[in-house]
Amino acid sequence: MKKIRIGLIGAGGMGRAHTIAYKNLTNFFGNEIVPELVVVADVNEAAAAKMAETFGYQRSTGDWMSVVTDPEIDLIDITTPNASHCPIAIEAAKNGKNVYCEKPLAMDAEEARNATAVTDEAGIITAVGFNYLCNPIQVYVRDLIASGALGKVVDFRGTFDQDYYNEPDQKHEWRMFKSASASGALGDLASHTISLSQFLVGDVDEVCGMTSIVVPERPDPKDPSKMLPVENDDDVHFMMRYKNGAIGTIMSNRLASGRKLSLTYEIQLTNGSIVYTQERQNEVQIYRHDDDKKQRGFKTVYAVPGHGDFDKFYPAGAGFGMSYSDLKVIEVHNALSAAAENKPYEIDFHFATKIMEIIDAVLESAETRSWVKVGKE
Amino acid sequence: MKKIRIGLIGAGGMGRAHTIAYKNLTNFFGNEIVPELVVVADVNEAAAAKMAETFGYQRSTGDWMSVVTDPEIDLIDITTPNASHCPIAIEAAKNGKNVYCEKPLAMDAEEARNATAVTDEAGIITAVGFNYLCNPIQVYVRDLIASGALGKVVDFRGTFDQDYYNEPDQKHEWRMFKSASASGALGDLASHTISLSQFLVGDVDEVCGMTSIVVPERPDPKDPSKMLPVENDDDVHFMMRYKNGAIGTIMSNRLASGRKLSLTYEIQLTNGSIVYTQERQNEVQIYRHDDDKKQRGFKTVYAVPGHGDFDKFYPAGAGFGMSYSDLKVIEVHNALSAAAENKPYEIDFHFATKIMEIIDAVLESAETRSWVKVGKE
Amino acid sequence: MKKIRIGLIGAGGMGRAHTIAYKNLTNFFGNEIVPELVVVADVNEAAAAKMAETFGYQRSTGDWMSVVTDPEIDLIDITTPNASHCPIAIEAAKNGKNVYCEKPLAMDAEEARNATAVTDEAGIITAVGFNYLCNPIQVYVRDLIASGALGKVVDFRGTFDQDYYNEPDQKHEWRMFKSASASGALGDLASHTISLSQFLVGDVDEVCGMTSIVVPERPDPKDPSKMLPVENDDDVHFMMRYKNGAIGTIMSNRLASGRKLSLTYEIQLTNGSIVYTQERQNEVQIYRHDDDKKQRGFKTVYAVPGHGDFDKFYPAGAGFGMSYSDLKVIEVHNALSAAAENKPYEIDFHFATKIMEIIDAVLESAETRSWVKVGKE
Amino acid sequence: MKKIRIGLIGAGGMGRAHTIAYKNLTNFFGNEIVPELVVVADVNEAAAAKMAETFGYQRSTGDWMSVVTDPEIDLIDITTPNASHCPIAIEAAKNGKNVYCEKPLAMDAEEARNATAVTDEAGIITAVGFNYLCNPIQVYVRDLIASGALGKVVDFRGTFDQDYYNEPDQKHEWRMFKSASASGALGDLASHTISLSQFLVGDVDEVCGMTSIVVPERPDPKDPSKMLPVENDDDVHFMMRYKNGAIGTIMSNRLASGRKLSLTYEIQLTNGSIVYTQERQNEVQIYRHDDDKKQRGFKTVYAVPGHGDFDKFYPAGAGFGMSYSDLKVIEVHNALSAAAENKPYEIDFHFATKIMEIIDAVLESAETRSWVKVGKE
Repeated sequence: MKKIRIGLIGAGGMGRAHTIAYKNLTNFFGNEIVPELVVVADVNEAAAAKMAETFGYQRSTGDWMSVVTDPEIDLIDITTPNASHCPIAIEAAKNGKNVYCEKPLAMDAEEARNATAVTDEAGIITAVGFNYLCNPIQVYVRDLIASGALGKVVDFRGTFDQDYYNEPDQKHEWRMFKSASASGALGDLASHTISLSQFLVGDVDEVCGMTSIVVPERPDPKDPSKMLPVENDDDVHFMMRYKNGAIGTIMSNRLASGRKLSLTYEIQLTNGSIVYTQERQNEVQIYRHDDDKKQRGFKTVYAVPGHGDFDKFYPAGAGFGMSYSDLKVIEVHNALSAAAENKPYEIDFHFATKIMEIIDAVLESAETRSWVKVGKE
Repeated sequence: MKKIRIGLIGAGGMGRAHTIAYKNLTNFFGNEIVPELVVVADVNEAAAAKMAETFGYQRSTGDWMSVVTDPEIDLIDITTPNASHCPIAIEAAKNGKNVYCEKPLAMDAEEARNATAVTDEAGIITAVGFNYLCNPIQVYVRDLIASGALGKVVDFRGTFDQDYYNEPDQKHEWRMFKSASASGALGDLASHTISLSQFLVGDVDEVCGMTSIVVPERPDPKDPSKMLPVENDDDVHFMMRYKNGAIGTIMSNRLASGRKLSLTYEIQLTNGSIVYTQERQNEVQIYRHDDDKKQRGFKTVYAVPGHGDFDKFYPAGAGFGMSYSDLKVIEVHNALSAAAENKPYEIDFHFATKIMEIIDAVLESAETRSWVKVGKE
Repeated sequence: MKKIRIGLIGAGGMGRAHTIAYKNLTNFFGNEIVPELVVVADVNEAAAAKMAETFGYQRSTGDWMSVVTDPEIDLIDITTPNASHCPIAIEAAKNGKNVYCEKPLAMDAEEARNATAVTDEAGIITAVGFNYLCNPIQVYVRDLIASGALGKVVDFRGTFDQDYYNEPDQKHEWRMFKSASASGALGDLASHTISLSQFLVGDVDEVCGMTSIVVPERPDPKDPSKMLPVENDDDVHFMMRYKNGAIGTIMSNRLASGRKLSLTYEIQLTNGSIVYTQERQNEVQIYRHDDDKKQRGFKTVYAVPGHGDFDKFYPAGAGFGMSYSDLKVIEVHNALSAAAENKPYEIDFHFATKIMEIIDAVLESAETRSWVKVGKE
Repeated sequence: MKKIRIGLIGAGGMGRAHTIAYKNLTNFFGNEIVPELVVVADVNEAAAAKMAETFGYQRSTGDWMSVVTDPEIDLIDITTPNASHCPIAIEAAKNGKNVYCEKPLAMDAEEARNATAVTDEAGIITAVGFNYLCNPIQVYVRDLIASGALGKVVDFRGTFDQDYYNEPDQKHEWRMFKSASASGALGDLASHTISLSQFLVGDVDEVCGMTSIVVPERPDPKDPSKMLPVENDDDVHFMMRYKNGAIGTIMSNRLASGRKLSLTYEIQLTNGSIVYTQERQNEVQIYRHDDDKKQRGFKTVYAVPGHGDFDKFYPAGAGFGMSYSDLKVIEVHNALSAAAENKPYEIDFHFATKIMEIIDAVLESAETRSWVKVGKE
């Protein structure tokens, strides 16, 4: 049994979700690694205190710096607003703490690269919260592609559509300002699709995108008679060329009527195809071109023991649905295992930097109406 | 905040599932009702001790009787093998403890009726673990039917198919003996379909069924060269006439190739239809006959805030999948709320007795090849 | 090239459907067998004359007897009301004509057995219009089952639900009287499901059924203020035991809200499963238990060249949908080929008699509330 | 009754498909308009003669010019190889004949514009064979969008994927040379998606696309030891900005494993969404944002009487599948009705020219790696 002493920074919704995952870790993964909830920090001290009380953190504080310098802490968990992710991570690294950070890692690729350089230098372990990659189905798909059984990837089409801004009387929100959120659907939603593309297909060489603002202004929540501008993408499409020669397109609309969690992909390979939607997260469609001609078809494969960590939750077999929350438990397990063993985790700052680089390239491309290379020249 | 002190009897898989649900209760439902894990009992004392250590029960014991008489316990949770459910429940009732019992309540209807009489007499609260009924989708469906918007029920078709005995080299198991398990697929699987029928449509008047043993003998697990007989139904079908005039059929096969958790129903009403499968537990298909003629069709409705307790898990909206485990959290909440408020819970011993009465009638019907009335004359 | 000279008896909707099929036969199957539209008869002489003119029959008549005795006719096609099917077929047989008859063959099993004896005696070729069996998908499924690749059949569940009587203001129709139509949904709809069961699984040994009248009276179409009784089954369920040991259930409701052409089946075998619905007639779901454990699932197989006569319609490949009408073209091809080669056709009077015997047994079973043996003792 | 005398030019597969449609026209649409099969021409005179004999054309010839000048012909039907479409159409127009031409209208937009100018000048009626637009479902969808009930279009995503070139041993074909076919998947497949986009959403302002050659060389069919280059797109993606402000993306891969006739679209509107796939051509998914919050969902609407010309085929109701061939019957009816009434048909040379202009713009865009305006400046 190995204890990992947690210092959580950020006592909002994501802090709560991480905490619930910590509390369920041993329920599903046994006692090998045990998180100890030591301290929770939030600029809103009362919120931190309340979370400590509700979930059993030993202490709370309004000063995150005291947490990253605390000798009793092994791992800093960052769930604060986006702009503070890198600054906190850098301080944590300087103090030799491992870091588990919510996505997005940074405000832009430059900041992400910088944070990654610092954490590399410090020799700490990092993990970033792209929880959809922890789905046993995705681990199975990645292994299936890597096995070569379906040939090589030809084409990736992905989406992340939701309709959370679809109500006609939707008010303005901070996310709609460029200063607060450089991009709209792109960073908030499509970043998850990009993470699946990166995880399953690999590095992107160049992109060409366009953005659309569907509703150009929204009522000021403080004074609904006043309108405020929507400054970033309601809807974004972009084409990609991968380094391995495949092509792809990702589309994401935050006003997509009827789409609730429509994080989907279709991967076409030379010898098969794979189709997935997050709305049915426990299944995937697989087509194998080398099946007998009279019996070819898309097969609905349910998550079963043998796919990723599914057996930790339902050793008895398929059909038992895993939830969104369960993916967070797997993520916490991955992050804490990496920290415990001092081994790099695949979904780390390097990985997250690549996602930021694609996002930056898409934004530049939409601005310049041209193809843009991904990453630093 | 109200504390409910738990005495768990049975430290096996279901005991573990209940315990995880207790530990998640406040995560999702807040601090109004808080379970206190006081003691866990199991005839296997070591197993009880291990569970206490792993999950934080204050004490453990090999003697369940000491638990049901323990003045520090408010609620007895029974997850032992089926034959001991009623005996334990009766002792608990006699000691004034509320009871939360795993399904099936009893070995037959007679035993269920007897236990119900005792618990009624004692004035305690009872709850039985038909967890699929806790799905927010089912609560929504029940309310929809009750609203009359779809007219009155005409026909119910239900299944619970799995393929857990489908491997050709499957060994014999205790469940295949009549002495240990009166029925096969009927009690193990179809009982859940019956519970949905009872919950959504109502009382059954009479049944007519047939059973089939697909593989008549299986290798003795202790000596695979020796064959043991399969004594109960691998596959069962039965027709029903409901008291409200509707008809129905339930089918359940424990060797149904490809079916993983195929607990399904189709309810046809005079003014609409409802179709559900547990393999996609976060959605239901609804048809409304009074839609415009050119626009009629089955609509896929995802669980959303407003359906049962969905918002406790995902207040932000639809698409986030709930898991099998989450249903157990809702069940624990329902059972403990009923105990806390001292109000009867809908899924109680009375409800469970009805399920046993239908099962008994189906077995008798299959035996006598005739229609059989449900319940005690 | 072989010419088959057709005498059509019955100039209604089904007569029209058969005629369109004749006219398309060479379009898809080439010139090997060519139907010649010689004469059309109908008690309504004007209707016969109009059909002759519209579709190019050489002659028309009001006297069907003159057609069955006409030396210029090779095949009698019967699309008249049900009660006249057998009388016409018997006269045709006595005159040495081959017979192609719409379903149902007869009013009851006794009449069907009698007609079959006569046609056998006469040595003519017979064919009956169970057109759904002509679907290339069904031919593929039958061959797949026969190959043994999926093991032996364990369980068959079938339906034929429609909602054609679902409008609240639906008037009374002749079909609702027992004198005109012994059964309701059973003969009109479920007979097709029974034909699939017979074609794919085989002979039924005994049945046990129940029927329900959902709307007990309907307005007289001549005087809507007057109500007329509905005398036969709106909804029917029945259980079956097959001679090969499998069990099954068929359900059929003619007021099933939302079901348009819901002729479906699920066949569970020891080593796989097959799921079909007529509403998506160009595809079938196949599950193979011997697939690799991590890759098992239901596969959607589209009709392709290699399945039955699909290539006659779309040699280029799958995805091109065949229609209901196309199935009738295949049926006509099968019937005329059998006649041309003087070889029995699988879907003949013997086959149709078995369907009638099952229907009779279900009706008797519903009446007597007991299991009933299928066929003549 | 109005007769239209047909001169068919091109006796290949498409000529056959058109002919079968002519022969079925009166079967489904009655005798108001009756095509008379006068003459069929083909450079291969024997093929023309054979088709005349098989399908009942009065005459055949090897000289198409004699057909376009024939005073006994009302309508010229062009099903020859693509390069001759416009030359023949222009001669037909000069001779005052109406023209019904298979897609694509032309080799490029310039040629299409020229032919359109000539036919406009001649005052004849034109029709082009985008048969998928004749689907009753598409007519319903167009009307639904036009009604405004779903708000305004925000986003269109379309595909046309097939796997016809997916066999590893696929030989080289003429279509793979740029000289014979300027584009690959784009013109052959995506043109249909573009036609749906044009029909349902409207004019495109500018496009930005990319192409990919997946298999760069294929064996020479005459000498498989020799490899020939694949010169045009196996796979194409392109983004669009519509004149009405909507955005869209179309993707088409002719090596898309498992995709048989995957002509699909998803249209997201401000108040609803529409999802379609040609593989299930008799149904469409509709989402209405203004449904009650607890009952929102995608509804599967089957084609029914009231949708386009569905009732001509199946007046009795939904569920009866229409086929690919049936769409051609509707197209023939549309083309001949327009000719008979001397009224322009929506899917005419003007419409087809727009499709060619988009294709040209995509090809230029892929070449120049930039956004390109659609249509002539």
